Amino acid sequence: MKYGIVIFPSKKLQDLANSYRKRYDPHYALIPPHLTLRDAFESDEPAEQITEKLDEIAKKYEPFNLTIRKVSSFQPINNTIHFKAELTDELRGLHQDLYDQLPGGEPEHPFVPHVTIAQKLSNDEHSDVYGSLRMLGVDHEELIDRFHLVYQLENGSWSAYETFRLGKDPQ
Amino acid sequence: MKYGIVIFPSKKLQDLANSYRKRYDPHYALIPPHLTLRDAFESDEPAEQITEKLDEIAKKYEPFNLTIRKVSSFQPINNTIHFKAELTDELRGLHQDLYDQLPGGEPEHPFVPHVTIAQKLSNDEHSDVYGSLRMLGVDHEELIDRFHLVYQLENGSWSAYETFRLGKDPQ
Repeated sequence: MKYGIVIFPSKKLQDLANSYRKRYDPHYALIPPHLTLRDAFESDEPAEQITEKLDEIAKKYEPFNLTIRKVSSFQPINNTIHFKAELTDELRGLHQDLYDQLPGGEPEHPFVPHVTIAQKLSNDEHSDVYGSLRMLGVDHEELIDRFHLVYQLENGSWSAYETFRLGKDPQ
Repeated sequence: MKYGIVIFPSKKLQDLANSYRKRYDPHYALIPPHLTLRDAFESDEPAEQITEKLDEIAKKYEPFNLTIRKVSSFQPINNTIHFKAELTDELRGLHQDLYDQLPGGEPEHPFVPHVTIAQKLSNDEHSDVYGSLRMLGVDHEELIDRFHLVYQLENGSWSAYETFRLGKDPQ
């Protein structure tokens, strides 16, 4: 089974991200807007076993502020345009723990927490879209108190398996 | 905010449902395959308040078997073709509690638990598709130990807010 671990931010931020994703992100229909804490990984462990580890990780961290003040791009690595989140101790710690305590190896890139709003653009499209989105800008803050374990269906879309509330004792 | 309460069944059943939904269900990209426990309802209550009520309801019920042995249709009411689930005490109780204890009024129809695989078909399409799906049949059983609170984004898709595990004390 292919798992991922993500934060689904507030409806407000998801709606804003979708207003761009609709045109610029071919993954638009596969998963709602999200901030990836742990990239997709294959595991034969049943979801219940992964859940136990995630319960333990979730209770180590208190709810924290997600602050987004910038539209950014991963160019030249790729053409993904995103809302860049400020890196907090909680985000850094969650990301680290989710790699240390789950199977599937090390992160491929340094952790840049973000919500994708455009990807798989040609270079020309990227220049155009990035230029206009950067001018529009973004200024958003919200409290994050949970993350989600999701898994991928055969059609490429993602289904939510379980929610983990930060700072709470597991059920 | 528009909320709904659903069961997301196993990956196996979701993949099977999607193999039909892809062609026959225009809601295919809006939400993964699901069994609706409580139809969509508008509420100004914040999600946290609804969550408290759902925690209480979830712990009243133990995990239960979901049994699906039949492809069925809601004709003549509408042309929705679905995997019909056998009605258990737990499904009946959950459905009743979710209407009694949440805002938004009474159910519009008697409760027929199901996973939709085709909808909004013309009458001719319905006859064709229903004929062939009924012949293929379905025979599935699994343990259900959770349900989900989801809410609708502006684009019509649904985002998962929280999971509730049956028979567990709330966090």
